[in-house]
Amino acid sequence: MPSQNQKSTPGSEQDSLPCQFIPSTEIQRFVSACLAKAGADTASVDAVTRSLVGASLRGVDSHGIRLLPHYVKALRGGRINGAPQLKFSRRSGCSGCLDADDGFGHLAGYRAIEEATTLAQENGLGAVSVINSSHFGAAGSYPLVAAEAGYLALCFSNSDKLVLPFSGLLPFHGTNPISFAAPVANQHPYLLDMATSSIPLNRVLQYRAISRPLPEDVAVNDAGETTIDAAQVSALLPVGGQGYGYKGAALAGLCEILCAALTGMGFSHQLLAMAGPDYSSRRHLGHFFLVIKPEAFIERDIYFQQMDLYLADLRAQVAESGAKVMAAGDREWAEQERRRATGIPVDHAVMAEFADLAREFELQPLN
Amino acid sequence: MPSQNQKSTPGSEQDSLPCQFIPSTEIQRFVSACLAKAGADTASVDAVTRSLVGASLRGVDSHGIRLLPHYVKALRGGRINGAPQLKFSRRSGCSGCLDADDGFGHLAGYRAIEEATTLAQENGLGAVSVINSSHFGAAGSYPLVAAEAGYLALCFSNSDKLVLPFSGLLPFHGTNPISFAAPVANQHPYLLDMATSSIPLNRVLQYRAISRPLPEDVAVNDAGETTIDAAQVSALLPVGGQGYGYKGAALAGLCEILCAALTGMGFSHQLLAMAGPDYSSRRHLGHFFLVIKPEAFIERDIYFQQMDLYLADLRAQVAESGAKVMAAGDREWAEQERRRATGIPVDHAVMAEFADLAREFELQPLN
Repeated sequence: MPSQNQKSTPGSEQDSLPCQFIPSTEIQRFVSACLAKAGADTASVDAVTRSLVGASLRGVDSHGIRLLPHYVKALRGGRINGAPQLKFSRRSGCSGCLDADDGFGHLAGYRAIEEATTLAQENGLGAVSVINSSHFGAAGSYPLVAAEAGYLALCFSNSDKLVLPFSGLLPFHGTNPISFAAPVANQHPYLLDMATSSIPLNRVLQYRAISRPLPEDVAVNDAGETTIDAAQVSALLPVGGQGYGYKGAALAGLCEILCAALTGMGFSHQLLAMAGPDYSSRRHLGHFFLVIKPEAFIERDIYFQQMDLYLADLRAQVAESGAKVMAAGDREWAEQERRRATGIPVDHAVMAEFADLAREFELQPLN
Repeated sequence: MPSQNQKSTPGSEQDSLPCQFIPSTEIQRFVSACLAKAGADTASVDAVTRSLVGASLRGVDSHGIRLLPHYVKALRGGRINGAPQLKFSRRSGCSGCLDADDGFGHLAGYRAIEEATTLAQENGLGAVSVINSSHFGAAGSYPLVAAEAGYLALCFSNSDKLVLPFSGLLPFHGTNPISFAAPVANQHPYLLDMATSSIPLNRVLQYRAISRPLPEDVAVNDAGETTIDAAQVSALLPVGGQGYGYKGAALAGLCEILCAALTGMGFSHQLLAMAGPDYSSRRHLGHFFLVIKPEAFIERDIYFQQMDLYLADLRAQVAESGAKVMAAGDREWAEQERRRATGIPVDHAVMAEFADLAREFELQPLN
């Protein structure tokens, strides 16, 4: 098993932190074992492990395996139901609502995208709202499943308040992610997975830990003034910053409307904070998934030809010196290939937390 | 009829240009008459007039009545079919494709949202792709119709290349708009209508005309370097700018995939330029519309209660000095109220173009 003390590959979120590289199968074993010990049933264990390890493989470290200790805490505190009875109710020819029974958002996410795909298979489109859910990790995890099965898919979630509304001084929206995946013949899917803030909270925490200044125009202090000092950050700006953040804020609003207005769940500003201190109350998050069958609009082979053309032309564009033009997801798929070869970089802080979990649950530690 | 030489209300796109204020009914008369003289049939005249005057009333001047001379030119050149035979083909339980027969995108847009709404009424969701279309004006025009009928709706389009891909040096995507509208009880809808670039081309042209510097990080010269000199601008940056423009670029890609990959129409980089010089060839644009019935997910009254709660809380947020926190669309609805009272500001350049059209078509000029 490789165990190297080196910087991870550039471009991943882990760059600049010292890491050990661990094979994904070994991480899978450990993540699954911890979740099971903490009280999650097999379906929940599998869903959370799949989402976390998948995100870490793609380089989305903020939503990858570093969240394991958090989820263990949420399970044990009672916030998350480790053995939920999911209930899907079809509500129209191509829509339905999934009650996640306060289980893991990952389990709900995979189930919802599966139900939406079935609806789309029958009717061309399928959409599933999710109620009584919790954090679902990387939003890209779910559309990806649909794309791998040959469908296009969109996913939306809201999350507890952390982002200013445009012209506002205090956080109101969550980082409210939007993800989209589209199938490509003989290639990985096109994959967009974006927060509607410029940066995730995790970036602030990382930069705070290493006293590195943040970029301009992405975060504010508790007076609502922009700051590059990560230690002073109390909220984030929507994507577009002070000039054009009304676009990011309106996209955050789109997430609120689909995930809370259409579900009856909490708006971001009403949700209990993911980071606690309350780890016992249910969070009642909502999500929204939409799946599109290409044949509902065009012959499948023409769709695939068009995707090939778009992606080939995009990737062939003249780039800045030292860069290349990439399609959404290209960076992640390249990172996945690297990490499948080298293992997943796990920074020392996460290694230490995992060692604590190993001791506590009497599991063989990661190595 | 009021005719004042004064600056328009702040916040509208016309600010800093001297304008005359003309009642919308008078503008409607003139726009309709010109389009009819230029060869558009009644359905086309009504659709284009509705979209242009609606956009101008909401303050979206870049996509309002200033486009009239452009459309007249496109009609006469043969780019646009003024008497199209629209053909709608249902392709699945909740999807269909509308062939716009190379007519105005506005006519296609209103018809597509109507068909998608009918599908959503029956099945919970409805989506309609549009083929063989042309420029459709303000993307917000169409979801708005669905929202006024009690449905949520999304709209996507691509457009000729003008925006850099992330890390690229040359334009590849269009300003590819995304719009979304959601109904609100006894209020105007929530209305998001955004280009996936930070600014529209029209802003560059306006600033060039008055030698005003552009904001930082929104546009580039022909070497792909950022510039604030509007005279040097040859392309735009995606929203998010040099730091986070991969988000704007990926959203532009979402538009390409829905509007070109799923329709077989041209990608932005393949489309003939809206601004010519070729005004005779058909442009073969695609659009994509999605309509959602609230009851497909939740009881209608709960949806409306939730929207009220979200909007009231959002608008009550503490704002920067001199500003207020607004929901997407609030600025436009306030502008519409002002312009219904004062008339629509028409700048002198547009007045001169309209005077030329009046002479040519032997119509009573605007006044």
